[in-house]
Amino acid sequence: MNYSSFIPPQRTLMGPGPSDVSARVLSALARPTIGHLDPKFVTMMDEVKALLQYAFQTKNPYTIALSAPGSAGMEACFVNLVTPQDTVVVCRNGVFGARMIENVERIGAKLVVVDSPWGRAVEPQQLEDALKANPDASVVAFVHAETSTGARSDAKTLCEIAAKHDCLTIVDAVTSLGGSELKVDEWGIDAIYSGSQKCLSCVPGISPISFSEKAVEKLKGRTDKIQSWFLDQSLVMGYWSGDGKRAYHHTAPVNSLYALHESLVMLHEEGIENSWQRHHNMHNKLAEGLAALDIEFIVPENERLAQLNTIKIPAGLDDAKVRSFLLNEFNLEIGAGLGQFAGEAWRIGLMGFAARQENVTLCLAALEQAIAKCK
Amino acid sequence: MNYSSFIPPQRTLMGPGPSDVSARVLSALARPTIGHLDPKFVTMMDEVKALLQYAFQTKNPYTIALSAPGSAGMEACFVNLVTPQDTVVVCRNGVFGARMIENVERIGAKLVVVDSPWGRAVEPQQLEDALKANPDASVVAFVHAETSTGARSDAKTLCEIAAKHDCLTIVDAVTSLGGSELKVDEWGIDAIYSGSQKCLSCVPGISPISFSEKAVEKLKGRTDKIQSWFLDQSLVMGYWSGDGKRAYHHTAPVNSLYALHESLVMLHEEGIENSWQRHHNMHNKLAEGLAALDIEFIVPENERLAQLNTIKIPAGLDDAKVRSFLLNEFNLEIGAGLGQFAGEAWRIGLMGFAARQENVTLCLAALEQAIAKCK
Repeated sequence: MNYSSFIPPQRTLMGPGPSDVSARVLSALARPTIGHLDPKFVTMMDEVKALLQYAFQTKNPYTIALSAPGSAGMEACFVNLVTPQDTVVVCRNGVFGARMIENVERIGAKLVVVDSPWGRAVEPQQLEDALKANPDASVVAFVHAETSTGARSDAKTLCEIAAKHDCLTIVDAVTSLGGSELKVDEWGIDAIYSGSQKCLSCVPGISPISFSEKAVEKLKGRTDKIQSWFLDQSLVMGYWSGDGKRAYHHTAPVNSLYALHESLVMLHEEGIENSWQRHHNMHNKLAEGLAALDIEFIVPENERLAQLNTIKIPAGLDDAKVRSFLLNEFNLEIGAGLGQFAGEAWRIGLMGFAARQENVTLCLAALEQAIAKCK
Repeated sequence: MNYSSFIPPQRTLMGPGPSDVSARVLSALARPTIGHLDPKFVTMMDEVKALLQYAFQTKNPYTIALSAPGSAGMEACFVNLVTPQDTVVVCRNGVFGARMIENVERIGAKLVVVDSPWGRAVEPQQLEDALKANPDASVVAFVHAETSTGARSDAKTLCEIAAKHDCLTIVDAVTSLGGSELKVDEWGIDAIYSGSQKCLSCVPGISPISFSEKAVEKLKGRTDKIQSWFLDQSLVMGYWSGDGKRAYHHTAPVNSLYALHESLVMLHEEGIENSWQRHHNMHNKLAEGLAALDIEFIVPENERLAQLNTIKIPAGLDDAKVRSFLLNEFNLEIGAGLGQFAGEAWRIGLMGFAARQENVTLCLAALEQAIAKCK
């Protein structure tokens, strides 16, 4: 068998992630590898922490980039902050809420599920009711931006309710970080995780996380061992800590962190509010064009994510055929439906570097042709 | 605060990893990101699997690249293949054997430790004795190439002993894969993990793993849930499986896998036996030069790793001062001692692309100057 270098096509990535990665970030990615304990690298890590604090709008000292994808970030929040003695209320309105439930089950904690319909925001009153019915609840977990449905929940209100019932909050911001208003400190979020490959437009494989002081206190107060060695943040802290010597835990993904640093520098240059606004503006342009094509959204207008547009597949169109046509004719990737929406919806991402006028225009023009040709 | 792009220095990496990454691999890393379910990407994944089978010398269908560093690869082997009902014999002769023990403890399985001195190979007779004394043992775990000490254990013999006692074997090949003779099928290894950043000279962050059919059978036969969702290989299989549709589990680190593919293509071009021989040859040249400098090895000659040379810090030299001198004057990184050897040893890596004549020559010449200047 002969093998040769893999030369990928140049796609336009408008699915649920990974999103388009700019040449600037790719170029940072390819800079020479240095050691994970090199003093120059440690200096860069400090900048990554500060830039992530900016992106999350937090002063949490424990704000780091986890060396694995967003689903490992989720697991890190759960295994470090949920003990088998906890009662956890998980709000589920899509695939990623369901994955949170998997995490709670594997820890063996008591689970309370608050179900909201797919494609809708989490209903605050339902959370309030669940917490009243379960006074022993100690943790509330929900997804800010459901990547499987395109629904945005009201994180601020949900956190207020959790705080009233003295619960720690774990929030999934995989798709929201950089694309939707998100204020970790102001909203009182205790543990949050995201992914590098969505609105930060970095390569996939890294999960930014942040723990409040209350969360760090809970972790430090644990007398049992965290069930994962790799994700045990009491050990990882020794490597990311700002004070003095960095203790070896595992080898950090050096080059991916170069790329994350660059994407965060770009976000800082643009300004976080400007980035939120840009996503919003591009969403409006896309929505206008979709309306002209008679394509309907799944999520009600005031619960929609700007960066992930879930739309109904028009009647008479073959799902897979359209997506293949877009990929083969225009090198354009849009996302299939997931879970309950498989075969019924498409997910059009406008994330990070992909939230650009040229992408909106290409997508609408290509969709128009696809609709004409794939009936 | 102002932030700007991070431009790393161009180092020569001769520590315990990451090793020097070639321009060819860095260039592959920076190719345009495509979707993790893109048909072109799936084709590349199939090649990564076949190339990893070649590197591991196995026909195991379950041979994949885990989306996280080697220590997550270790944990994946343990949490998937060790149940709380198992008795696990762990051979410890350095930091990574100790980490295996951490894994067993966090699973709650019964643990038997076979200790060998730091800097020495695992003693087969001790394993044999431990298995005779613990007839309920079901798993044997050991480190092939101890990155903390530079000792190479006789994996073939250890696996033979384990097989005689009907035990599944878990082998750490983080530092050996590509650098030392390693034959997964011929030696009867059931579960093996490695890292991308050692003798494959890829960027850090990926862990190649391979499970034998016996290991897959054990995993599939489990009725309890694996304690980690992210590392649950019964779920990951759906994404890496060769048959039909790839089920979404998490977003694969697309660009890092481009780089791994390229580094494996390079290994295939060179030939695995030639790569082993090259590491051996460079080690001999380095050893010759070190002898001329009156520097002694820690590990006895027949137990030494070619790719990781642990040497005694000559009397009267300041450990940190020498390493800083090498880094600042020559952009040369060598490794500090770890654990028991901290402050007493250096670790000189000759891994993958770093196992080159020019690196050996630079290292010896720079060390000679450092010895003269840092007394």
